[in-house]
Amino acid sequence: MTAPDFDKVAIELGDRSYDLLIGSGLLGRTDCYAGLPAGSDALIVTNTTVAPLYALALHKALKPLYRHIHQVELPDGEAHKDWITLNRIFDALLSSTCDRHTTLFALGGGVVGDMTGFAAACYMRGVPFVQVPTTLLAQVDSSVGGKTAINHPLGKNMIGAFHQPARVVADIDVLQTLPAREVVAGLAEVIKYGPIADRAFLDWIDENLSALLARDPAALVHAVKRSCEIKARIVAEDERESGLRAILNFGHTFGHAIEAGLGYGEWLHGEAVGCGMVMAAQLSHRLGLIDGDAAARLRGIIGRAGLPVRGPALGAQRYLELMRHDKKAEGGEIRFVLIDSLGHAVVRPAPDSLVQEVVLDCSG
Amino acid sequence: MTAPDFDKVAIELGDRSYDLLIGSGLLGRTDCYAGLPAGSDALIVTNTTVAPLYALALHKALKPLYRHIHQVELPDGEAHKDWITLNRIFDALLSSTCDRHTTLFALGGGVVGDMTGFAAACYMRGVPFVQVPTTLLAQVDSSVGGKTAINHPLGKNMIGAFHQPARVVADIDVLQTLPAREVVAGLAEVIKYGPIADRAFLDWIDENLSALLARDPAALVHAVKRSCEIKARIVAEDERESGLRAILNFGHTFGHAIEAGLGYGEWLHGEAVGCGMVMAAQLSHRLGLIDGDAAARLRGIIGRAGLPVRGPALGAQRYLELMRHDKKAEGGEIRFVLIDSLGHAVVRPAPDSLVQEVVLDCSG
Repeated sequence: MTAPDFDKVAIELGDRSYDLLIGSGLLGRTDCYAGLPAGSDALIVTNTTVAPLYALALHKALKPLYRHIHQVELPDGEAHKDWITLNRIFDALLSSTCDRHTTLFALGGGVVGDMTGFAAACYMRGVPFVQVPTTLLAQVDSSVGGKTAINHPLGKNMIGAFHQPARVVADIDVLQTLPAREVVAGLAEVIKYGPIADRAFLDWIDENLSALLARDPAALVHAVKRSCEIKARIVAEDERESGLRAILNFGHTFGHAIEAGLGYGEWLHGEAVGCGMVMAAQLSHRLGLIDGDAAARLRGIIGRAGLPVRGPALGAQRYLELMRHDKKAEGGEIRFVLIDSLGHAVVRPAPDSLVQEVVLDCSG
Repeated sequence: MTAPDFDKVAIELGDRSYDLLIGSGLLGRTDCYAGLPAGSDALIVTNTTVAPLYALALHKALKPLYRHIHQVELPDGEAHKDWITLNRIFDALLSSTCDRHTTLFALGGGVVGDMTGFAAACYMRGVPFVQVPTTLLAQVDSSVGGKTAINHPLGKNMIGAFHQPARVVADIDVLQTLPAREVVAGLAEVIKYGPIADRAFLDWIDENLSALLARDPAALVHAVKRSCEIKARIVAEDERESGLRAILNFGHTFGHAIEAGLGYGEWLHGEAVGCGMVMAAQLSHRLGLIDGDAAARLRGIIGRAGLPVRGPALGAQRYLELMRHDKKAEGGEIRFVLIDSLGHAVVRPAPDSLVQEVVLDCSG
């Protein structure tokens, strides 16, 4: 007998605790799915891009564990993160008479994960689900934390639930088939954990950026593991996002405005977050929280990762309007996640005039 | 100063505990809504039937407590308990830029309550809501317990969440404007609490049925209070319906089959439950759990209340099919809520042949 050849991060959330497995070749291993809640039915939710690559392997791995394995393929992309598409999951569950002990498996990126998780939260008022993330972004971000949602025409992720997965299986090998643009977008969320919580990790990223972009397996395992550890610690302290957890949205307030302003899907989420972090760092500097060198260093890393460092020219007023629609806004006041060092985040409002200056400075 | 002139039932659910206020003239009293979660916006969700009767009074009562009070009127009826209608609540929230500290007020019957609760569960992943139930059914049943949902073409309440209200304000006066058929339908759920949990309450109902049908305020207050106390005790022991709580579905497995078989809205929910209880009691008798006199006595009370005691002629096979789609079915096996005395429920499967005999005996 040998020790399991994968890394494990325990997400501590009381009776909603679960394990995140990280390693090579995990997706097709039956033992990675052992010990999940008992039931006779499993539903694999995936999309038309991922299905031909990995659905069969997952199906085979689950075969010894479930009497019936169903599958539904959603159209690919953020543009389909809506009720119509979500309802296809419910249709699949109900037309197969899946009961309340059915486990859903989200095989795909963040969109598949968010929709599958939300469907699991709502189907018969809650069934278990497992995340099998196939993008770097999903592995380091959306698969940990239990946030699930769909979009509304008036705002991203406006309709959703907190619903923790029963397990996350992050297979590093799947990142080898990912388009380069998506690897880069995923790196935005990896980089994020540095400035908000861990300066040493930011230094490590700075030194290992080439290895990450070359998809070196050891570098990817470390990046995914450290990102998930940091996120797990923050989520464990604030599962329902009443305070601390907001710092995970560093770069997201500006980023969501970019995504909403251009129309979802134009920029990848990670690209918008990358650029949003440049803006948030710049705002932190203008408020006197960090010096110009720190903002410039973060901007440099984001740029070298291949992420955009300038936002689209939507106009400063439009940015403000879009940010006021953000979930993080309270009573119309936007609360920005800022940094007071490369390794520590703070949350606070900022004067409109200063925000407009930052937007003008960093866009167009 | 006088003591508050209403009854209060405390629903004990840890950090999700809340109070249920029962009495006369409560709907329009500002003090009944004091101490709710702070926020600047309130959204009253109601329907086109209830709005002209009570929306203004609720609006006035809330005026001193919120900066902005919005309102959305849904079409009336179970047929509209769907995503399209639910989305009108999200549209209203987002177009008014309501933030995550907005409180929703469900002013209406069970459909409005279920939809408002589900919208509150999902809006920005969860905002508070208050139940102001305007039907007897909603006061004694759907306003306690935190079950929220919408229907799917393939099943009732299939998509939903557990989301506890921050308060329930049950104003007995509103029952005076209720159509007689709805008072009778509400009595089905009142009667239910007797056979499943409280023989003395069943005796009281038996003796006070005329007063209840005549809408005597004191009788109504007692019926609502005792029903909610029993439900609160059961829900407190099993918030997420993993065991005991299933007994609240006495009569519902057969009842849901009637509703689904005829098309939602043909029979009122309470009417279907009334008839379903007759069937469930008959099945209990056939299984040797209770004697024929007990089943006949319950059937007598249900009939004297004005509820149907015979189901529609859907065919025994069709009843079985519809029940297999019920959420309570597990791996295709239907688990029936039965009684082994007038005052105690048990949950167990039953042979198809026996169920078919009961259906044939009690329908057509």
